[in-house]
Amino acid sequence: MPRWEQGSEERLRTAALELFEERGFDDTSVVEIADRAGVTTRTFFRYFPDKREVLFAESDRHRAALVQQILDTPDVTQPLRVITSTLAGFDWTGPGMDLLRRRHAVIAASPGLLERDLIKRDDIAVAFADALQRRGVEADAARLAARVGIQVFLTVYAQWVESDGHADPAALTDAAMTLLASLVPATRATG
Amino acid sequence: MPRWEQGSEERLRTAALELFEERGFDDTSVVEIADRAGVTTRTFFRYFPDKREVLFAESDRHRAALVQQILDTPDVTQPLRVITSTLAGFDWTGPGMDLLRRRHAVIAASPGLLERDLIKRDDIAVAFADALQRRGVEADAARLAARVGIQVFLTVYAQWVESDGHADPAALTDAAMTLLASLVPATRATG
Repeated sequence: MPRWEQGSEERLRTAALELFEERGFDDTSVVEIADRAGVTTRTFFRYFPDKREVLFAESDRHRAALVQQILDTPDVTQPLRVITSTLAGFDWTGPGMDLLRRRHAVIAASPGLLERDLIKRDDIAVAFADALQRRGVEADAARLAARVGIQVFLTVYAQWVESDGHADPAALTDAAMTLLASLVPATRATG
Repeated sequence: MPRWEQGSEERLRTAALELFEERGFDDTSVVEIADRAGVTTRTFFRYFPDKREVLFAESDRHRAALVQQILDTPDVTQPLRVITSTLAGFDWTGPGMDLLRRRHAVIAASPGLLERDLIKRDDIAVAFADALQRRGVEADAARLAARVGIQVFLTVYAQWVESDGHADPAALTDAAMTLLASLVPATRATG
């Protein structure tokens, strides 16, 4: 890779986020993103398959790391708790809180990005359910724990971003799980 | 509307489903769907904004009816139960079990259709949470009940379609709720 291209991926992500904020996702082109980042569109497509993926570049890496953590969790007798704890304990701050908060807002404001976000979530739910099953959790329980765990974490993540990273994800998760428990009818099985 | 166009919407839906089954969603064009239904592409676009929407035509009507039911539910002290009961009690059999089962399979097999399905689910979750809030349920509880209720119902719906409509949705829902209760840690609030 030529020297001048070093840092291109990072610059492309920053440029895309800025442009999505300024003009909206729909009115931003790949050419404009590449221009602002000072690279060619060819370079853009070396890093990202399309315009949406710029904001989800780390999603696949995150998913792989999270799945590995589930596979490595010593005790999976409470599969829903495994999912929420794994998500809450993950280091999401990689690109910095400012970028995370802006990214969160941009996704919420654009149907095209929200769509991609929903697919990534679904991919993660499928991967988590698969990981739980590989740990011996029964299929229906694994799927429901994965799906519901992600829904719980969505609440937690939104609150955490809102707090600028100051709130404790573990405490937010406990609160969300208590809320969930209050919603589940008292006819609960002793399982 | 000219006489020969009567039934076009229904014919377009059947034609689309057949073509998606035969060739896959990606390799089917709007022109081909219109041809098989014996109408022009102009007529296609009078009914549907795009190729995906053919399989989701009833989604908006369903959502409005479901929201109305939530608004009319006498007792919302168990909001998660309101969501799952409303979904389980709804008459999904409109187009007939055969079409529902084929539609379910086609969506599961195509990323493009699954994407649209995820968006429709998200729209429904937002609308349900809003309806619960209008009924006085606190915002966080309303959102979590809506999201988790839909996840529970996804399990129920898949099992119901699998059973060719023979299984009782209420019984399947009870089983799914019992499973959910078994997943929620015993530190439950008395709420």
